[in-house]
Amino acid sequence: MTFRACVLTLFPEMFPGPLGSSIPGRALKAGLWELEALDIRDFATDRHRTVDDTPFGGGAGMVLRPDVVDAAIEAGWPKTGPLVYLTPRGRVLDQELVREFAAQPSLTILCGRYEGVDERVLEAREVTEVSLGDFVLSGGEPAALALLDAVVRLLPGALGATDSLDEESFENGLLEYPHYTRPAVWQGRSVPEVLLSGHHQKVSEWRKARAEAITQTRRPDLWARYTARRAEFTNTAVGGPNGECGQ
Amino acid sequence: MTFRACVLTLFPEMFPGPLGSSIPGRALKAGLWELEALDIRDFATDRHRTVDDTPFGGGAGMVLRPDVVDAAIEAGWPKTGPLVYLTPRGRVLDQELVREFAAQPSLTILCGRYEGVDERVLEAREVTEVSLGDFVLSGGEPAALALLDAVVRLLPGALGATDSLDEESFENGLLEYPHYTRPAVWQGRSVPEVLLSGHHQKVSEWRKARAEAITQTRRPDLWARYTARRAEFTNTAVGGPNGECGQ
Repeated sequence: MTFRACVLTLFPEMFPGPLGSSIPGRALKAGLWELEALDIRDFATDRHRTVDDTPFGGGAGMVLRPDVVDAAIEAGWPKTGPLVYLTPRGRVLDQELVREFAAQPSLTILCGRYEGVDERVLEAREVTEVSLGDFVLSGGEPAALALLDAVVRLLPGALGATDSLDEESFENGLLEYPHYTRPAVWQGRSVPEVLLSGHHQKVSEWRKARAEAITQTRRPDLWARYTARRAEFTNTAVGGPNGECGQ
Repeated sequence: MTFRACVLTLFPEMFPGPLGSSIPGRALKAGLWELEALDIRDFATDRHRTVDDTPFGGGAGMVLRPDVVDAAIEAGWPKTGPLVYLTPRGRVLDQELVREFAAQPSLTILCGRYEGVDERVLEAREVTEVSLGDFVLSGGEPAALALLDAVVRLLPGALGATDSLDEESFENGLLEYPHYTRPAVWQGRSVPEVLLSGHHQKVSEWRKARAEAITQTRRPDLWARYTARRAEFTNTAVGGPNGECGQ
């Protein structure tokens, strides 16, 4: 079944943009997903095509009108999957949420601009608020492009022979180990010997140790979650990872 | 002075892409920044223009060769600002880091593809590894577009009259309060009365209370940092926020 993506935006010309190349572009051409970008301005009702107005209570910036945004949602949202609003106030995107989105038949993304969207339309439509991270973008569009890229590459058939879904970041709770390729010596720097040994078990141990060391050093938060999960596993799976009974 | 952005990529056609519209596009046309996208493939040395090879030690995916990537860095990096590699292993991007980048004369971004880049070139060039968040993209390009959008909008003169830099997310450590605009009643939903009162002090208090409540509910991590900072401030600034001496 074709995954359906719908983007509600004031800048429809930004789509598909980068999603027309590489993995998402190949998947788009292969019909694994389809993308519709609706111009919110088409749903304005006055002759100036006004989409925004000043905020009640004063202050800088402009706010997108609830009636205009709601009409765009009504026209674009297929209602077979989540309706997401990209905002720094939202749940912070992670790979688990990406996987949830990829498992749905559709994803509709509302892109804010200016100060944001009138709160009432977010309440009325029970919108899922998602944040790309703790930084401020000029609008939701760059975040929508990144979110769709992350989701689309998980669709069945999207990744080709040179891509890999295995052993990648966050799938096992660790950051990735270092990678090396030819030449074996470059500018006097050699590839770690174990990787040239042909000893699969040792290579695998070395990579796991490096992934653990990098995670522990760079991301104490991920490391804490990883060790907690490991401890839980050890406590519940009597007899160890293969499930043998220790009695 | 014109801010200089350089992107090293296998997909130069993705740039400027969305950065050609809206705030970054206006700033680009106004000469506030310039963007160069170098094709890493132009720095391959064999007749097949090979940029990658299989990983030493085995496993799925391909790794970008150190010699090819290093030649692209040498050609593109102006060395007046940081050289960033976008990878889930990196320091997680936040608004503080965005501000640091925006204060530099240039930003060079290396976009990975496949399994990644040979570790030796990252070591040799002392590359700054940055992550957009805990999710996996098909390459560094969508992350580069988001990072450049965030950086460029902070360049002096980039934001127009309808944009606002004040009171926005993360500048005060809190998520944003809700916004409302016309119509005052929409689908039976009224704007909170205090926002119609014209009483600036009360509006300001209401907004702060809402921002605090939203931050506390949605992001306990940000809330803990905010309250810690507030406590520190109260302890050190004798006499309160205006610096009057309490003695």
